[in-house]
Amino acid sequence: MGRRGVREEIVEAALEQFHAQGYNAAGVKVITDAAGVPKGSFYNHFDSKEALAVVALERYGARRHLQELVAGDGEPLARLRAHFESLRDAVVGAQFTRGCLVGNFGAEIADHSPVIREAVREGLAQWTDAVAGALTEARDGGALRAGLDPRATAGFLVNAWEGSLIRARADRSAEAFDSFFTLVFDALLPVADPQPA
Amino acid sequence: MGRRGVREEIVEAALEQFHAQGYNAAGVKVITDAAGVPKGSFYNHFDSKEALAVVALERYGARRHLQELVAGDGEPLARLRAHFESLRDAVVGAQFTRGCLVGNFGAEIADHSPVIREAVREGLAQWTDAVAGALTEARDGGALRAGLDPRATAGFLVNAWEGSLIRARADRSAEAFDSFFTLVFDALLPVADPQPA
Repeated sequence: MGRRGVREEIVEAALEQFHAQGYNAAGVKVITDAAGVPKGSFYNHFDSKEALAVVALERYGARRHLQELVAGDGEPLARLRAHFESLRDAVVGAQFTRGCLVGNFGAEIADHSPVIREAVREGLAQWTDAVAGALTEARDGGALRAGLDPRATAGFLVNAWEGSLIRARADRSAEAFDSFFTLVFDALLPVADPQPA
Repeated sequence: MGRRGVREEIVEAALEQFHAQGYNAAGVKVITDAAGVPKGSFYNHFDSKEALAVVALERYGARRHLQELVAGDGEPLARLRAHFESLRDAVVGAQFTRGCLVGNFGAEIADHSPVIREAVREGLAQWTDAVAGALTEARDGGALRAGLDPRATAGFLVNAWEGSLIRARADRSAEAFDSFFTLVFDALLPVADPQPA
């Protein structure tokens, strides 16, 4: 169990099991077994699996390095591309499994749990805020195509990414990511149109 | 049970329960109860819940009226918009629940079942083919922005839609759909850039 304490072991194991298995497939016993703690200890720390899922989502969000999008070095669209490239690399490294915990919970369980739906909504909103920050900076620097609203565009990009993850997992292929980068960074966002084919 | 026969009742109940509850939450008993048939009759008709899920996915795909995208009346981009508008209207009519069965299974279960993953892949591929047909027609008629590859663009649109569904369900709002229509039909696809803001 190490030195992290039972609660911390449960949170880390839940993050791993929810991401790998999904919400319903990762039962409390699956999580406590993975944490190496007695099942009976679970309810000393969490009122429910649902409450644990909210903590896991918050922790997942905190590890996305969103601050680098808003205040990192380099041109904002280059930072944005690097952000999505790092997300892509993680999925490729996981052999096109797992996807995004926020999107997975959104698809599987948000309809059925108001507290998880709210945590998914908040996770997507924080991510969208960070992307919108980079797009606003690009717009103010004259690097964003005229007429694009940074916030609506940011929401669309985050949504498009979540769907691209579903496709990449179904195909076990990076083709969906390639299309995302081409359509978003060559066609949708830049000021100048690409050369006609 | 009506006149449809036990197998047909099970398929229709499974389609409903998988869509409303998700794969893991809709157990065989949930499905046979919803179908009004004895649980014991299930295995006379299906080898497994997994096999039933593949049949349900095929039936879901067959009901999407994809042929209207390829060969319907009107301009191809107008047909494409009407297609996504009808998908949006169904989700709004379901109070922003359920989403798309293909995307839901892709997020929840594709990592864990090769046969379901293949059915999800095939469902997304057929849908992409239909969207690509409309985009190819638009391109050939000079109505698609230069440089956009119809097939890669079609894949991107389908993926972006799947992610927009996740967001619309999390937000219980049509805002994600509004952004999709604005970004796709005003900015990404048309020949002429919108007027600078």
